[in-house]
Amino acid sequence: AAASSDNPSSKVYAPYTVFKGKAALSVSPVLPTFRKLDSGGLQLDRRGVMMLNIWPAIGERKYDWEKRQSFALSATEVGSLLTLGPQDSCEFFHDPSMKTSNAGQVRKSLSIKANADNSGYFFSLSVANNILKTSERLTVPVTSAEFAVMRTAFSFALPHIMGWDRIACQLSAGVSYSTKAAPLVKDMEWDR
Amino acid sequence: AAASSDNPSSKVYAPYTVFKGKAALSVSPVLPTFRKLDSGGLQLDRRGVMMLNIWPAIGERKYDWEKRQSFALSATEVGSLLTLGPQDSCEFFHDPSMKTSNAGQVRKSLSIKANADNSGYFFSLSVANNILKTSERLTVPVTSAEFAVMRTAFSFALPHIMGWDRIACQLSAGVSYSTKAAPLVKDMEWDR
Amino acid sequence: AAASSDNPSSKVYAPYTVFKGKAALSVSPVLPTFRKLDSGGLQLDRRGVMMLNIWPAIGERKYDWEKRQSFALSATEVGSLLTLGPQDSCEFFHDPSMKTSNAGQVRKSLSIKANADNSGYFFSLSVANNILKTSERLTVPVTSAEFAVMRTAFSFALPHIMGWDRIACQLSAGVSYSTKAAPLVKDMEWDR
Amino acid sequence: AAASSDNPSSKVYAPYTVFKGKAALSVSPVLPTFRKLDSGGLQLDRRGVMMLNIWPAIGERKYDWEKRQSFALSATEVGSLLTLGPQDSCEFFHDPSMKTSNAGQVRKSLSIKANADNSGYFFSLSVANNILKTSERLTVPVTSAEFAVMRTAFSFALPHIMGWDRIACQLSAGVSYSTKAAPLVKDMEWDR
Repeated sequence: AAASSDNPSSKVYAPYTVFKGKAALSVSPVLPTFRKLDSGGLQLDRRGVMMLNIWPAIGERKYDWEKRQSFALSATEVGSLLTLGPQDSCEFFHDPSMKTSNAGQVRKSLSIKANADNSGYFFSLSVANNILKTSERLTVPVTSAEFAVMRTAFSFALPHIMGWDRIACQLSAGVSYSTKAAPLVKDMEWDR
Repeated sequence: AAASSDNPSSKVYAPYTVFKGKAALSVSPVLPTFRKLDSGGLQLDRRGVMMLNIWPAIGERKYDWEKRQSFALSATEVGSLLTLGPQDSCEFFHDPSMKTSNAGQVRKSLSIKANADNSGYFFSLSVANNILKTSERLTVPVTSAEFAVMRTAFSFALPHIMGWDRIACQLSAGVSYSTKAAPLVKDMEWDR
Repeated sequence: AAASSDNPSSKVYAPYTVFKGKAALSVSPVLPTFRKLDSGGLQLDRRGVMMLNIWPAIGERKYDWEKRQSFALSATEVGSLLTLGPQDSCEFFHDPSMKTSNAGQVRKSLSIKANADNSGYFFSLSVANNILKTSERLTVPVTSAEFAVMRTAFSFALPHIMGWDRIACQLSAGVSYSTKAAPLVKDMEWDR
Repeated sequence: AAASSDNPSSKVYAPYTVFKGKAALSVSPVLPTFRKLDSGGLQLDRRGVMMLNIWPAIGERKYDWEKRQSFALSATEVGSLLTLGPQDSCEFFHDPSMKTSNAGQVRKSLSIKANADNSGYFFSLSVANNILKTSERLTVPVTSAEFAVMRTAFSFALPHIMGWDRIACQLSAGVSYSTKAAPLVKDMEWDR
């Protein structure tokens, strides 16, 4: 299967960012990539994610982006966030070295906890690195209004990181007209 | 009425898939087809569906796609899923041979049942084939987070499988400008 | 202000229709029209609506489209439907001859009532015509699942019938880049 | 970094407006602007807003647009509105002269209060201008149905005023194909 090359020049940067006393948090969707099939069709290759970054404050209204920790939320993890009630919590664990010889050496976790008065959530990103013998934890309080922005923006972005907007685009591109002998829907259920 | 031909080469494959112990489940929208009218307009021809596949595990992390069972959810069946509460259940019945001489010979049912602790749902797809004397049942547990992904993705896809995105596209394509003597909305209610 | 002409040939027909024992009901969005300003901009001219039709059954699975009654739901009336709880009801009144000499001669009303067991709604469209001395009432039961389809499709269509998708398209079309001396948001609040 | 110029001729005007006894209220999204990077990418420059205007009635069905007061809701303020329950209230404060020598001279506040019978909200916009020695307050009652329209339209518009629709467009534009040696998602979490 052929594969066309990336075009990094067309990248768009529009993260949603909240700046708080001890750290800043930003979220931004990363789109999936597709592989061109010999048939001419497109096959989802690398899944998209919702990239979350937290980076520490190093002075009044100054934040050090070089010290950021990243966490790439999968579609299903985004689903968890979308269903989070005002008193709920959730936690995700990632191992960036999974399936390599360094597996288990670095452990990342993102925890999202409703705060005591239900006025929002604490986002805490912990990274324990056995190789560098480091352990970091960055926490950002997120208000209900900010979480509502995330929820709405994540709902918008989810079909995009899943690649479903591509499926929808087929139509707009003018294909998918029926032939006179169009197969019926029930035929699809037979189709195996 | 004329009908242009399908262009299978532009197909996009991006199903949402969950792999569980005994089987895997995937969902993927299938767009409607349109028929070109003599007036130049487009008429919805074959409705779109949400195609659901379940196929069995045949070893550790190995699944046999050839043994898949398919179920094509209509717009209204997708509507049922969208309103499903955390303790609700629903079941759909399809007869792929409906209105043929084999009607009633094959019966498919998809049941979606909240599990005991409300942490998700069981998707069970049963196929009873009187001709082949076979009866199969494949079940996949779906977590709340995974169901939230489906709910959000189904909400996104529903207008597309209904063909309503096409209606919306008319605008983008630059038509629908008003003439100086544009009819009022109330005229539309007289228009029969 | 100039106005370009309609292009009826590009019309797309994709109503969502439910067929019941005594009548059928269909809903379909009608897009707004825009007027071209001398500045080159576009001004919303005629608002879009959600067109609802009910037409009677005249035999088994036969329906008479010629006998249909229409009701054009405004954006705000669509808003009412979107907030309708499982036990709620609402009713809208239209006078298709409003502001003409025939005002008050024809009265249309659409009532949407939750049914007794909360499993859906009754849509009733009444038309009393004092001129023709006629009075009609067509009622269609709509299940929760069908109403969920409407709710999701109406939420999708609402920004389109308001013309807000056009606003969004500006961006996609590549305009709205900032100049070096871009005005700040706070300037906008001064801007009168 | 280069910056292309604005194209005001392509502006689209489609506010959602409600006319009430003492004043009218309109809301309309204002898109963000982007700055072209030397890499060819796009960087969000000026954030988009939801522009709210209230202007007074000066007679029966006559309203004076010249006397309007404006309030530019940020993404997070829109998030507040989206989470507003039927009995909730919220208030936002803006200083259009913030960070200038006139800071604190003009104070604007928008308050949104559920009315007594939970049938809607009061939108009140107050502007106290110490320089002109003026103080104005304009209030518009908004029904639940009208608020539902705003909620749905704001949910649609939010990703657009955040610039996230641009990110989604990358895909449609045909980029983001994977190379044969596509980086894995986990690599992204290492990428700093």
